[in-house]
Amino acid sequence: VAKRLEKFKTTIFTQMSMLAIKHGAINLGQGFPNFDGPDFVKEAAIQAINAGKNQYARGYGVPELNSAIAERFLKDSGLQVDPEKEVTVTSGCTEAIAATILGLINPGDEVILFAPFYDSYEATLSMAGANVKAITLRPPDFSVPLEELKAAVSKNTRAIMINTPHNPTGKMFTREELEFIAALCKDNDVLLFADEVYDKLAFEADHISMASIPGMYERTVTMNSLGKTFSLTGWKIGWAIAPPHLTWGVRQAHSFLTFATCTPMQAAAAAALRAPDSYYEELKRDYGAKKALLVNGLEDAGFIVYPSSGTYFIMVDHTPFGFDNDIEFCEYLIREVGVVAIPPSVFYLNPEDGKNLVRFTFCKDDETLRAAVERMKTKL
Amino acid sequence: VAKRLEKFKTTIFTQMSMLAIKHGAINLGQGFPNFDGPDFVKEAAIQAINAGKNQYARGYGVPELNSAIAERFLKDSGLQVDPEKEVTVTSGCTEAIAATILGLINPGDEVILFAPFYDSYEATLSMAGANVKAITLRPPDFSVPLEELKAAVSKNTRAIMINTPHNPTGKMFTREELEFIAALCKDNDVLLFADEVYDKLAFEADHISMASIPGMYERTVTMNSLGKTFSLTGWKIGWAIAPPHLTWGVRQAHSFLTFATCTPMQAAAAAALRAPDSYYEELKRDYGAKKALLVNGLEDAGFIVYPSSGTYFIMVDHTPFGFDNDIEFCEYLIREVGVVAIPPSVFYLNPEDGKNLVRFTFCKDDETLRAAVERMKTKL
Ligand SMILES: CSCCC(=O)C(=O)O
Ligand SMILES: CSCCC(=O)C(=O)O
Repeated sequence: VAKRLEKFKTTIFTQMSMLAIKHGAINLGQGFPNFDGPDFVKEAAIQAINAGKNQYARGYGVPELNSAIAERFLKDSGLQVDPEKEVTVTSGCTEAIAATILGLINPGDEVILFAPFYDSYEATLSMAGANVKAITLRPPDFSVPLEELKAAVSKNTRAIMINTPHNPTGKMFTREELEFIAALCKDNDVLLFADEVYDKLAFEADHISMASIPGMYERTVTMNSLGKTFSLTGWKIGWAIAPPHLTWGVRQAHSFLTFATCTPMQAAAAAALRAPDSYYEELKRDYGAKKALLVNGLEDAGFIVYPSSGTYFIMVDHTPFGFDNDIEFCEYLIREVGVVAIPPSVFYLNPEDGKNLVRFTFCKDDETLRAAVERMKTKL
Repeated sequence: VAKRLEKFKTTIFTQMSMLAIKHGAINLGQGFPNFDGPDFVKEAAIQAINAGKNQYARGYGVPELNSAIAERFLKDSGLQVDPEKEVTVTSGCTEAIAATILGLINPGDEVILFAPFYDSYEATLSMAGANVKAITLRPPDFSVPLEELKAAVSKNTRAIMINTPHNPTGKMFTREELEFIAALCKDNDVLLFADEVYDKLAFEADHISMASIPGMYERTVTMNSLGKTFSLTGWKIGWAIAPPHLTWGVRQAHSFLTFATCTPMQAAAAAALRAPDSYYEELKRDYGAKKALLVNGLEDAGFIVYPSSGTYFIMVDHTPFGFDNDIEFCEYLIREVGVVAIPPSVFYLNPEDGKNLVRFTFCKDDETLRAAVERMKTKL
């Protein structure tokens, strides 16, 4: 294995999903629904296949999807972007992240992350030869330590990467935090990479796109995907929106990482993004109920539950149960209780920071959530 | 844009396909069929979507596809591989190439290519910080200059990358060439990356997998895809087969480039790979007729046509028409003749080497091929 990947293990999502299958445990680990996406989107994919939309797509996206992405971005963030010059379709948001980082970051550039972070951030930055700094968001509220962040910015800082709503904590960056980060970026000529895949799962306040903060669009790459919002995580349709000079770098890397993304699924994604507002409202209502079910259950089972205002994840503290760290706790949870969760220490530069924490997802049908809660209440 | 990608332009496939649309020209450029894939494969995709196979696949592939790939490899090359430990499903062969290179090559490692080469090889090696050496295959027969190759191998050589049948020349590496390269690899402890996506389009002799040369499997990554063989280039299903110690590197890079590949299309790919032999025979027969049609037409139009024994590409020399180079010729061909081809100079480290050449594809319906030939015969 190349040095750039030496320190990384099999992703925790793969490890945990395989353990779930092996032990027949209820999987509240990796963030994929155990219910299906909407029929009108599946129907659109089937139509595209039958209509013979089965050859290479244009590298940066089929025109109808680029347009649908631009329209949705206008609706959501108020920003008008050129679908031909500022939108790039990728094979999931993971590829958007890789293309952004490999397309724009040079070896030795410094990039600031907020820990805990989705593990691909650190791995991809390592592939790019970047120096990673991490600012830790701490419970109970996971707020940004503003002065610590400011002190971390140096003349080598090339980018700050945020994820709001935030996986794995459920935190949403506040307007004050976003404006503080925006000012830092503008004052120090720093780029901003914004992973906003959970934007439609914002329960307590509206999601704010970093690109919509005045002066930020021109230095921001906004990433999103179809999977979380349309319960079709397996289709792997993502995208990056950025001004032309940044889009150039993203597209160059994308051209050589995957060249293009699955054509019929792009056609279906275009149909999905044109869903009426009622679709998104219903999604949020459904997930709100699931969230309440899981939060109450985790509290009843004895966890310290931290507030989650977005995403479909809940972060809890497992110390009441007396385990040394998150890995040991999760192993016990799988083997003895029959529930899979994600041990978040892998999402920190310093694993110690995450050792008391465990992440659960509520993107499962109610019966599954209830069964998991029941097991934890009786067996923990 | 990051330095690793600075020297690369918009891929020639994207440039040429966009020009084809703009000028309403007949597209014999990028290698995608203008006819559809087989119904039984499309039906399998639709069934998978309807059956709810729409969430994240296992990162390295859905079990049924990993098995189908291993079975096909056994049939084709006589090698028994473990589908769980030696097969990785990727988002097209382009991603298999990226994952192999980023997963196994360190900065400063030397990698030897044969020019002309598919442009992603050089770009991805640049992303990995590799030093690229290229051995030029020259017309009329594009044979490997064995002594030149031998002299190019140094103590820094980490890998040799081959593509057989070879895009863009249509050359198939002979058993003698493969054995010579194999001996070099074994004597110098060099890896071998084999892109074999055109293995089923071998017209004059059977395709030989490099991995099947004695002693080579343990140092070879074999890459292939669904798209060319099943006329579904837009589905972007590829794979890499390698012994576990190399698979580890490929999978690590893959995990962070795309994480997983489109689930329902993987299910359909598994069905495709179990096609009866008659499917492959018919494919070859159909393409053989198309090839004859295009070769005769190009000769009649006045090109010097080089023999192509595999792939769906034909390389020709355009010097009879008096243009300075391939770019100028191709521009004239699009604007004045109404036919798109690929100027191959971008596939060489030294563009001069390709300036007399042009590549045409015959993966189009007969009517399209006839119309293109007619235009070239009358307007060139
Ligand atoms: C490939 S896992 C992507 C993110 C996610 O779903 C998770 O954090 O569980
Ligand atoms: C992304 S283009 C892949 C290879 C091919 O089809 C071509 O060379 O035309």
